[in-house]
Amino acid sequence: MILILNGPNLNLLGRREPEIYGHTTLEELEELCEAWGAELGLGVACRQSNFEGQLVEWIQQAADEGFKAIVLNPGALTHYSLALLDAIRGQRLPVVEVHLSNIHAREEYRSRSVTAAGAKGLVSGFGPTSYRMALVYLADLLEAQP
Amino acid sequence: MILILNGPNLNLLGRREPEIYGHTTLEELEELCEAWGAELGLGVACRQSNFEGQLVEWIQQAADEGFKAIVLNPGALTHYSLALLDAIRGQRLPVVEVHLSNIHAREEYRSRSVTAAGAKGLVSGFGPTSYRMALVYLADLLEAQP
Amino acid sequence: MILILNGPNLNLLGRREPEIYGHTTLEELEELCEAWGAELGLGVACRQSNFEGQLVEWIQQAADEGFKAIVLNPGALTHYSLALLDAIRGQRLPVVEVHLSNIHAREEYRSRSVTAAGAKGLVSGFGPTSYRMALVYLADLLEAQP
Amino acid sequence: MILILNGPNLNLLGRREPEIYGHTTLEELEELCEAWGAELGLGVACRQSNFEGQLVEWIQQAADEGFKAIVLNPGALTHYSLALLDAIRGQRLPVVEVHLSNIHAREEYRSRSVTAAGAKGLVSGFGPTSYRMALVYLADLLEAQP
Amino acid sequence: MILILNGPNLNLLGRREPEIYGHTTLEELEELCEAWGAELGLGVACRQSNFEGQLVEWIQQAADEGFKAIVLNPGALTHYSLALLDAIRGQRLPVVEVHLSNIHAREEYRSRSVTAAGAKGLVSGFGPTSYRMALVYLADLLEAQP
Amino acid sequence: MILILNGPNLNLLGRREPEIYGHTTLEELEELCEAWGAELGLGVACRQSNFEGQLVEWIQQAADEGFKAIVLNPGALTHYSLALLDAIRGQRLPVVEVHLSNIHAREEYRSRSVTAAGAKGLVSGFGPTSYRMALVYLADLLEAQP
Amino acid sequence: MILILNGPNLNLLGRREPEIYGHTTLEELEELCEAWGAELGLGVACRQSNFEGQLVEWIQQAADEGFKAIVLNPGALTHYSLALLDAIRGQRLPVVEVHLSNIHAREEYRSRSVTAAGAKGLVSGFGPTSYRMALVYLADLLEAQP
Amino acid sequence: MILILNGPNLNLLGRREPEIYGHTTLEELEELCEAWGAELGLGVACRQSNFEGQLVEWIQQAADEGFKAIVLNPGALTHYSLALLDAIRGQRLPVVEVHLSNIHAREEYRSRSVTAAGAKGLVSGFGPTSYRMALVYLADLLEAQP
Amino acid sequence: MILILNGPNLNLLGRREPEIYGHTTLEELEELCEAWGAELGLGVACRQSNFEGQLVEWIQQAADEGFKAIVLNPGALTHYSLALLDAIRGQRLPVVEVHLSNIHAREEYRSRSVTAAGAKGLVSGFGPTSYRMALVYLADLLEAQP
Amino acid sequence: MILILNGPNLNLLGRREPEIYGHTTLEELEELCEAWGAELGLGVACRQSNFEGQLVEWIQQAADEGFKAIVLNPGALTHYSLALLDAIRGQRLPVVEVHLSNIHAREEYRSRSVTAAGAKGLVSGFGPTSYRMALVYLADLLEAQP
Amino acid sequence: MILILNGPNLNLLGRREPEIYGHTTLEELEELCEAWGAELGLGVACRQSNFEGQLVEWIQQAADEGFKAIVLNPGALTHYSLALLDAIRGQRLPVVEVHLSNIHAREEYRSRSVTAAGAKGLVSGFGPTSYRMALVYLADLLEAQP
Amino acid sequence: MILILNGPNLNLLGRREPEIYGHTTLEELEELCEAWGAELGLGVACRQSNFEGQLVEWIQQAADEGFKAIVLNPGALTHYSLALLDAIRGQRLPVVEVHLSNIHAREEYRSRSVTAAGAKGLVSGFGPTSYRMALVYLADLLEAQP
Repeated sequence: MILILNGPNLNLLGRREPEIYGHTTLEELEELCEAWGAELGLGVACRQSNFEGQLVEWIQQAADEGFKAIVLNPGALTHYSLALLDAIRGQRLPVVEVHLSNIHAREEYRSRSVTAAGAKGLVSGFGPTSYRMALVYLADLLEAQP
Repeated sequence: MILILNGPNLNLLGRREPEIYGHTTLEELEELCEAWGAELGLGVACRQSNFEGQLVEWIQQAADEGFKAIVLNPGALTHYSLALLDAIRGQRLPVVEVHLSNIHAREEYRSRSVTAAGAKGLVSGFGPTSYRMALVYLADLLEAQP
Repeated sequence: MILILNGPNLNLLGRREPEIYGHTTLEELEELCEAWGAELGLGVACRQSNFEGQLVEWIQQAADEGFKAIVLNPGALTHYSLALLDAIRGQRLPVVEVHLSNIHAREEYRSRSVTAAGAKGLVSGFGPTSYRMALVYLADLLEAQP
Repeated sequence: MILILNGPNLNLLGRREPEIYGHTTLEELEELCEAWGAELGLGVACRQSNFEGQLVEWIQQAADEGFKAIVLNPGALTHYSLALLDAIRGQRLPVVEVHLSNIHAREEYRSRSVTAAGAKGLVSGFGPTSYRMALVYLADLLEAQP
Repeated sequence: MILILNGPNLNLLGRREPEIYGHTTLEELEELCEAWGAELGLGVACRQSNFEGQLVEWIQQAADEGFKAIVLNPGALTHYSLALLDAIRGQRLPVVEVHLSNIHAREEYRSRSVTAAGAKGLVSGFGPTSYRMALVYLADLLEAQP
Repeated sequence: MILILNGPNLNLLGRREPEIYGHTTLEELEELCEAWGAELGLGVACRQSNFEGQLVEWIQQAADEGFKAIVLNPGALTHYSLALLDAIRGQRLPVVEVHLSNIHAREEYRSRSVTAAGAKGLVSGFGPTSYRMALVYLADLLEAQP
Repeated sequence: MILILNGPNLNLLGRREPEIYGHTTLEELEELCEAWGAELGLGVACRQSNFEGQLVEWIQQAADEGFKAIVLNPGALTHYSLALLDAIRGQRLPVVEVHLSNIHAREEYRSRSVTAAGAKGLVSGFGPTSYRMALVYLADLLEAQP
Repeated sequence: MILILNGPNLNLLGRREPEIYGHTTLEELEELCEAWGAELGLGVACRQSNFEGQLVEWIQQAADEGFKAIVLNPGALTHYSLALLDAIRGQRLPVVEVHLSNIHAREEYRSRSVTAAGAKGLVSGFGPTSYRMALVYLADLLEAQP
Repeated sequence: MILILNGPNLNLLGRREPEIYGHTTLEELEELCEAWGAELGLGVACRQSNFEGQLVEWIQQAADEGFKAIVLNPGALTHYSLALLDAIRGQRLPVVEVHLSNIHAREEYRSRSVTAAGAKGLVSGFGPTSYRMALVYLADLLEAQP
Repeated sequence: MILILNGPNLNLLGRREPEIYGHTTLEELEELCEAWGAELGLGVACRQSNFEGQLVEWIQQAADEGFKAIVLNPGALTHYSLALLDAIRGQRLPVVEVHLSNIHAREEYRSRSVTAAGAKGLVSGFGPTSYRMALVYLADLLEAQP
Repeated sequence: MILILNGPNLNLLGRREPEIYGHTTLEELEELCEAWGAELGLGVACRQSNFEGQLVEWIQQAADEGFKAIVLNPGALTHYSLALLDAIRGQRLPVVEVHLSNIHAREEYRSRSVTAAGAKGLVSGFGPTSYRMALVYLADLLEAQP
Repeated sequence: MILILNGPNLNLLGRREPEIYGHTTLEELEELCEAWGAELGLGVACRQSNFEGQLVEWIQQAADEGFKAIVLNPGALTHYSLALLDAIRGQRLPVVEVHLSNIHAREEYRSRSVTAAGAKGLVSGFGPTSYRMALVYLADLLEAQP
């Protein structure tokens, strides 16, 4: 079971700056993730919060809730939330950081990810497919670590 | 109808560092805003939160709640909350950023507003009158866009 | 009586980069200011100069000329003229800094105001209405300090 | 009565990066604090939150709740939460900032404390004993200010 | 047909700092890519060079050679080769930048990608699977753009 | 008709630091420009001022005075005069920035041109010939835009 | 036996900027330390020097002289003496860095401690009590390591 | 005889980002240069390479090959190739650095020329005419130094 | 004959921020300078301008007007006027830079003097006596260079 | 009685880099100071040390030794000795900082004086006369404060 | 057998800026190295390239070619070639970085060595003798590791 | 006769962080130096001090004491002691800076040598052999300058 976490403003997907973030809504994105997970033999649960503290707690509790890995899109928190970084490092599940847009091709301050330093790696710039790529990786990883 | 949002620590107004922020309390400030709105023919609703996530959500939902514009004093979040910036950019209402004190005449780090980049503009340094000035602008703007 | 000072290149208003500064000319802006002043019971005198030295001198002499307050749009001097800052600090009238465009939403170097540190506060981003907002504030202030 | 506040991820104590933060759990730490307080004649109440907004509010309300001083470990918020700094400055109780690890001996960005500027002082690097040292100081201080 | 380009020192794979880059050799990586491509219905051609100029030319010529997309691991050139960035921007094929290690979790200077600004996006930190994830994305993309 | 503007201290030419700026005086330079203009079929008018404000006004008025293009050597103002930059951007004539010395081969602060961002381009380092090169370009440009 | 070392200008205590450093003299501080040590069952020896080299040597020799730990207030050397840092790291006794004032609440350059990176931890801002807190810690530590 | 050297990606001219670099191809540019040289009585030889090392060697050997001067467009190497700078300084021919686009009006990092510090001067922003301007200068220079 | 030049806002002396600049007016300062000059056998002429351009021209012409040396207080221009620096370097008279206040003990940006790099030296912080000290030096210097 | 302190390497005067520091030896400089003091009715005592600690102690003790003021040339310690700055601030005598060379016209790092922030002011660039200028100031000051 | 690699522009030795690099040619330097090697019982092979990629490959292959150690003068690549750094780290032979000139006594940017972080150490500033010193070290090292 | 100077904490050699500095003690290092000197026909005298002032004086006096050259390991002073730099520059003997560890492969701040700018060159990273390499160079140099 994979936990997919979306951070601040991702509930606006499809309505928010669509020239950057595309036209898919959060609901559609979550359905896509479930479908992709199903194809890969992975259960998927999706949550979104605009609160740093809530994201910190979901990350902390994920292992106890029985999840095997986390896909995390921290939204704007990517660039300053050391609390999220500490949460990632403070637990034992693999975390994949994903972004819909290419953070290296936007404003200077968006090219820096504070949180990625705690993650396995980063997938950035492929729209909803970024999430699918993360799931492909996790399917491989979990298969190798039964 | 205008939504007036006050961020972290503005509930302390009148008690907190009065040599900087003055002696008006938040309740008095909100009453002033309502009175000023009434003079200008604008309904006004006031909210305060110390949680970034709550402010993000109020901004996201303001249009759906029927508001026509937002007056936002982000408090200390002004200087680092990219999540607030994204929330402002992710919706369609005009936002006016206001500050009681003059952020360019204080500590170096306070002269930088991360959130103002998403707002129509900034009014800073006039005490409670900063809010009145924002309402004067919005009355004009809304009249011009019936 | 309020002195309204416009700095370098504001005589180009209406012709200069209208997508940023709008279509109102300086003459129209000055007429607007006079009309707004009249509504607020404030006399208004407008001057423009492209010379830092001239602006410094107008600010220095304003009190002796009988003005009660200054509205200052320093144009590009905002970002480097320490001489203007010293002039503001070297006299006793309240100064309101105004900008037509939102200086926090443009080039990095425009988000820094060297002069605002000496002013009461800053109004930035509301087009000609920035000046009106400044007058609203000064009407209040002068009424309170008869 | 002393209020002891622990910030983001401190609920993971004992499990999180024990080579840095040690093996004591938050529950054990809180019991230690109560015992140390008892020795020093100080009542102690402990709270933890992963939400910046919650910590801001506990700090704001501490005096009204009857506390005489605050011991604060802001966790990762230490390094960016200007809202916490404003909350500390916006009330009148003495605040002692504590850290389990030595923030000057870790990553560059951890050596900078944004919040300590509002505190009486900082105790950093002594594991759970950091809290005891803070209590020793506060016992002295409160005795001197009956 | 997809062109997979590996930059400086990737010919050392398996031998070079295996604690960072793993034990797979370049030959094995290329075979994996071909196998993954085959699964996805994509032809794959792999090349490696230690010369910036050679990589620039392969990128320039890829479209004329009939390739539909490029997977690029620029190695250390990631961090300073503006010539590679210009080459990516100077042609019309989609480019996916990949890294075996997580560039955001290493030396400060490795967290900055000069080249990613020209790419569709970045996949970093998943070992050889980074390449597979890039191919998964490109299979999707090319299917959508027949 | 081309307007050639020289900024602060260029009236000292020939006397000022000749190892950097050469032995040609301003009068000789202006005669050279007229002669070069004549060869190219271009009328040329030359002005010099040590006042930023005067240069701003000459640039503003050049089109109304019937000039077709401007050659500008801003002298030391190159490195800090945002007012000149705004003046260049605020009018419609093409501007060529010229320097006698090579600004990239001198003190660090001289390698940065604030004003060139508004110009068509920059010619720097060729002594008086820098002006001739600018005229050659403008002759071409004006011929192409009759 | 604990060695308490005070660095440059601490011999001026009580006379030097008392609004920052308080009215206790160095002699009184040393007597306080001895008394606090006695209460905690710790012998205490106090030395002060204005010479970096002398402090380096006292730190180097402390173990051979039979001390079990060091309390160090490096004074202004805190902010630049890499030689002190190397001395701390070059020996095996635990070192606690103390400051009378809160170094995070003063000039920017004082918030950086070069020496603390080699210490167990830092106690800063509690006046003479900072030393007592250090002794409380060391009493615990030495008891645990008989 | 003049050697004209074009660096990385200039072989893409006409195809690469034409809104920045224009529609002239490299072949057309080289023919233009030959024609302009002929007008000025200068023989012209043109070479292009995407390899820093090749450009270094052409610069080193130019004098021995009988060239009298070099026109160099280093492409993206302008901004980081200290090896090119050393090559320019390590030989005795005059070098004119040229750019098609105005490097001071683009991304921040493009406004810095590492190589220009070794050149006679810089011509930037005039499209193909930049090369003609360089030739005009060199014709003058070589005439003066027979 | 010595030329004493005072820059922007020094005409406000005695009225402007007297806690920093003292109570002596410009007229009194100039009389003091004349008296001190007389004691030292030096004629003294005093001028003040708020215009950078005017100061530049006075410096340029001083030698032709028969002055033997310049005492210059550039006011706020000290910190950014490269044009003044070039004017100082572009003529042959010795220049002594003076300041009433201690520029190293004020805001960070005031500790940097752009203009002093061209002067013989700097006298800063002694109130009107700064000018007298400059005259003492110049009397010595001119005596030595008859 | 005035105490004149010279810091590291000033005992080399006359031999050390004479193109920067001149040909006067320390002994000659001290004799000059005594002579200048005599003219001004001031007793003068001169000391030199290459040890920061020694300079700190001389400054600390100067008032107790009966001196009325200090002239301090800190040599290279000017640029980093916060201990000297604290010593200056920790006593009550006026201190004048002097330099033989113009610190604003040399290497970048020499233009910053850490110690001058504690002094009355700075005299820099006039060779041995810098000391005489300091004495002229102190004679005035002490006369005014009998 | 020792491999001696010289990077960009070192083939110009003796002709290039001889006041910095001396009058010895590359051929003479290589003969010196062979002679010094012979004295020390070390075979020596010398290569030079102006191509980063070529140097990367020689470093990669050195062990397979039977070399026991590398002496590397990266020329200007020292300051930016992360690819060379990775090549050094990606193989197992000891590498000694050498420079003819003292890189710490030249332009600021030359004092930073990107490549030295991967080498055993650095020898800089002794002209051709730098190479001899490297060989002396390697003779010792290889003797100790037979 | 060569003077070998070791700075702060080098008397701890063999005991201090041996994983960085090795197991050789200072006494052993000094004996090695004497032996290496003897082989090279050079007398060698060794001194160590933890005081910057002492090192400054030994450097100043070395020529008068009859030394022909200096080998200097400034320890941590390398990174901030401008007084040592001035001492090196203020005398006429050649100075070779040596380090046991590779300063370019450690903490960022250790890669910068303030003192090396005054030395002939730098040898860093070869353990005790660094000193031998320095002696090899000096033997050559002194032979060439009898």
